[in-house]
Amino acid sequence: MADRARLEIAVREQGERVRKLKAEKAPQDQISEELAKLLELKAQLGTNDGRQQFVLKTPKGTRDYNPKQMAIREKVFSTIINCFKRHGAETIDTPVFELKETLTGKYGEDSKLIYDLKDQGGELLSLRYDLTVPFARYLAMNKITNIKRYHIAKVYRRDNPAMTRGRYREFYQCDFDIAGQYDPMIPDAECLKIVHEILSELQLGEFLIKVNDRRVLDGMFEVCGVPADKFRTICSSVDKMDKMAWEEVKNEMVAEKGLAPEAADKIGEYVQLNGRTELIDKLVQDAKLSQSKVALEGLNDMKQLFAYLTLFGVEERVLFDLSLARGLDYYTGVIYEAVLVQSQADMQTQQNEHCESVSVGSVAAGGRYDGLVGMFDPKGRKVPCVGLSVGIERIFSIMEQRVEASDQKIRTTETQVLVAAAQKKLLEERMTLVAELWKAGIKAEIMYKKNPKLLNQLQYCEETGIPLVAIIGEQELKDGVVKLRDVSTREEVDVARENLTEEVRKRTCQS
Amino acid sequence: MADRARLEIAVREQGERVRKLKAEKAPQDQISEELAKLLELKAQLGTNDGRQQFVLKTPKGTRDYNPKQMAIREKVFSTIINCFKRHGAETIDTPVFELKETLTGKYGEDSKLIYDLKDQGGELLSLRYDLTVPFARYLAMNKITNIKRYHIAKVYRRDNPAMTRGRYREFYQCDFDIAGQYDPMIPDAECLKIVHEILSELQLGEFLIKVNDRRVLDGMFEVCGVPADKFRTICSSVDKMDKMAWEEVKNEMVAEKGLAPEAADKIGEYVQLNGRTELIDKLVQDAKLSQSKVALEGLNDMKQLFAYLTLFGVEERVLFDLSLARGLDYYTGVIYEAVLVQSQADMQTQQNEHCESVSVGSVAAGGRYDGLVGMFDPKGRKVPCVGLSVGIERIFSIMEQRVEASDQKIRTTETQVLVAAAQKKLLEERMTLVAELWKAGIKAEIMYKKNPKLLNQLQYCEETGIPLVAIIGEQELKDGVVKLRDVSTREEVDVARENLTEEVRKRTCQS
Repeated sequence: MADRARLEIAVREQGERVRKLKAEKAPQDQISEELAKLLELKAQLGTNDGRQQFVLKTPKGTRDYNPKQMAIREKVFSTIINCFKRHGAETIDTPVFELKETLTGKYGEDSKLIYDLKDQGGELLSLRYDLTVPFARYLAMNKITNIKRYHIAKVYRRDNPAMTRGRYREFYQCDFDIAGQYDPMIPDAECLKIVHEILSELQLGEFLIKVNDRRVLDGMFEVCGVPADKFRTICSSVDKMDKMAWEEVKNEMVAEKGLAPEAADKIGEYVQLNGRTELIDKLVQDAKLSQSKVALEGLNDMKQLFAYLTLFGVEERVLFDLSLARGLDYYTGVIYEAVLVQSQADMQTQQNEHCESVSVGSVAAGGRYDGLVGMFDPKGRKVPCVGLSVGIERIFSIMEQRVEASDQKIRTTETQVLVAAAQKKLLEERMTLVAELWKAGIKAEIMYKKNPKLLNQLQYCEETGIPLVAIIGEQELKDGVVKLRDVSTREEVDVARENLTEEVRKRTCQS
Repeated sequence: MADRARLEIAVREQGERVRKLKAEKAPQDQISEELAKLLELKAQLGTNDGRQQFVLKTPKGTRDYNPKQMAIREKVFSTIINCFKRHGAETIDTPVFELKETLTGKYGEDSKLIYDLKDQGGELLSLRYDLTVPFARYLAMNKITNIKRYHIAKVYRRDNPAMTRGRYREFYQCDFDIAGQYDPMIPDAECLKIVHEILSELQLGEFLIKVNDRRVLDGMFEVCGVPADKFRTICSSVDKMDKMAWEEVKNEMVAEKGLAPEAADKIGEYVQLNGRTELIDKLVQDAKLSQSKVALEGLNDMKQLFAYLTLFGVEERVLFDLSLARGLDYYTGVIYEAVLVQSQADMQTQQNEHCESVSVGSVAAGGRYDGLVGMFDPKGRKVPCVGLSVGIERIFSIMEQRVEASDQKIRTTETQVLVAAAQKKLLEERMTLVAELWKAGIKAEIMYKKNPKLLNQLQYCEETGIPLVAIIGEQELKDGVVKLRDVSTREEVDVARENLTEEVRKRTCQS
């Protein structure tokens, strides 16, 4: 008790010290150190009476996954991985943090969202912001010039999360990339085909894949009179067109970024355009745009892309959209973004009218980045890359809502049979039998009580969806049988003990 | 060029500034900030000529997994997950970081190894150090009193890594835990059974699972005359017995921790003991130890545990070892650690002689922690827990070495068939055919060249282990067939196009 009182005084004093340092605006470093001491003292205080006094939560913008959410997540992952494997991809993994300098200068205006680790001596580290930059670092470091790989892992952004809409600070990305020097637009078309397959298989409803090309954008900026050193920042403004009205975007370009109003107006005309091959043909003839060599290159590749997409049978859901810009710095060619749209009817009007009103958000995106690996290579050797990233959190949200709405029951375990006793004092017999089943590869459980009631054992099965119960009692043990009960039909049948494994397997082969 | 020159000057000046601050021992905070500016400038400089000048590496103590390593890793994971599911576990996931205060006061002397995130405004965060504390936080936060769950994820420790022996700063843990108020030692026995199953199925060679109980240790300390406030720190010293000789451990207890030499000597006698039921019986009769109530509780439970382990058929590989202590603060009952031993012969001598000489390291560990959840619960409500953690990195190392030694070929993709052309100008036909196969769920690839040579296409299959090639040429297209080639036998057969899917599936159902 004397110890506890001393500790309480120490906590109070330390708290005072921290408050004083804060008031004095002492170096953050020093405050953190004293704050750490305070937390340590508070923890000791908490431990003494067996508990702590602080808010029990996950960090802002993050969440736990409970077993039901995990069951949904694993189903989604398995669909996606299956698709990546169907297209011949290998997989790799990289650390969750990188040297800070590996990430520096890759994300443009978004760099401020990178999580840094505290300098505790040694290297300066940051949490990965995406899987693309670590992939490029991996290729350069291992001098790999050809690979088709997928990578599913969490990435970190200090964004203001809107978690209800499936936006988090820690979230999964499912990336597929093709690196290598190949003939134009063949890997690019396969990436779009993969996005199409995944969104179709997940049955998320109608979707639309918007495509554009950084070269078309750059050519457009050029012919509209944007100075070359403003290309990237004006591109960032165009990228906001799915969240802001054109007038606001124009205002940002002119008032904030100093673009001539005439240039902005010219851009405004182009970025309203969307269509397919006929639009490409029109733009190739466009008096202004056709004067840009890069724009023409982009347009010709776009035409080739649509031809390949037609062969793959997916061109219907792909739309060439000049307002698509993508925020990241590293794209050099084709870029794309898939959005869910509300209904078939909506989608058809959308192709003529304005896109933004019906889209409920981007679920996949990607593009070509031919310069990124070269930024890491000591000799600047380039490895052309194209890839896609599926943004899985929003898809989880949709799936979760759907499961809840449907009242569908999701099992979170795969247990095939519960070994139960009809009488008391049969724990050892239950343990022996369940070990026999485990040995045969059967998924089986017992309840961890010495003498559980049969009713409780049956209820456990109903709650967790275990389809079978293997019941033993004095009589069954004497007869060398097990009473096998079907939980849903309540039918019971005696099975010879040596046939139990086979019988369980036969009855649960579908589940 | 003028821009570049200006940038170079800026980099030089900023470098000078950082050096000066370091020399002046300015606050770390300020140095970091200026260093970040320097890196940013350097990155801009790098980007200008398309590259960066810095060391291309992963952070200290971490590594990438290449596709071959991933193939091994996924095989190991699938064995482990399969076992967890066989025992009826659900799975959950938690964020990679927690509020700093969630981790504070849980790890004793090891707390210094926790990675903190930089304070960028907002909450103070740390990377998770294990999966047990986040699990306890999850239970308390969601008021869960019963669950059997597994969790496979990376954890982070700022340790001095010995990567050649499979020790890293970022590494996977595969955890299985049973939470709930149950009858003694039933879940505990199942945890040991699971460790036994996993190590057997992974075929890692001989292993031994050492068990002890914190109550036996505490009782031993008590009767040896260790003051109660030194129990945890003396326990930490005992924990080092697998790495240090007894004399060194004793020295640490006496010289560093101020324990009376007689007390240390008494401990020294006990911790040399190991055995099974007969040892437990002997200790229950031990004149000194039997005077401790907690020790007797622990010994009686240990006896019950061995009875259950015998029913599960695993007692042969389990050894009650009084030198096993485990470093972590939160254990309250049975504790265990599995080590690989070099051979059957070694293992037998080991039971009588000294353990440390033959063990090649711990591959799994765990124990009972009945107080941890209560530390998070606002009302201190306890949820008894017992669990295990498989340390997978060391297992990977062993598996990798084995694969390399065996010259075994590991496939990193699952592609069943390559769609190839025998003549030029058949890209569109290849694309159409491969899309047909994808639609039917066949794993198929094409080479991303307009006119690849047939030889190159066949070589690609041999390199990557693709078993079949579907070859089309003018003649095949005219006849409505595809030439299906078996890569290993080089046999070719014409298959009607509408039967191709079925034929591919039939021939690759094993792979």
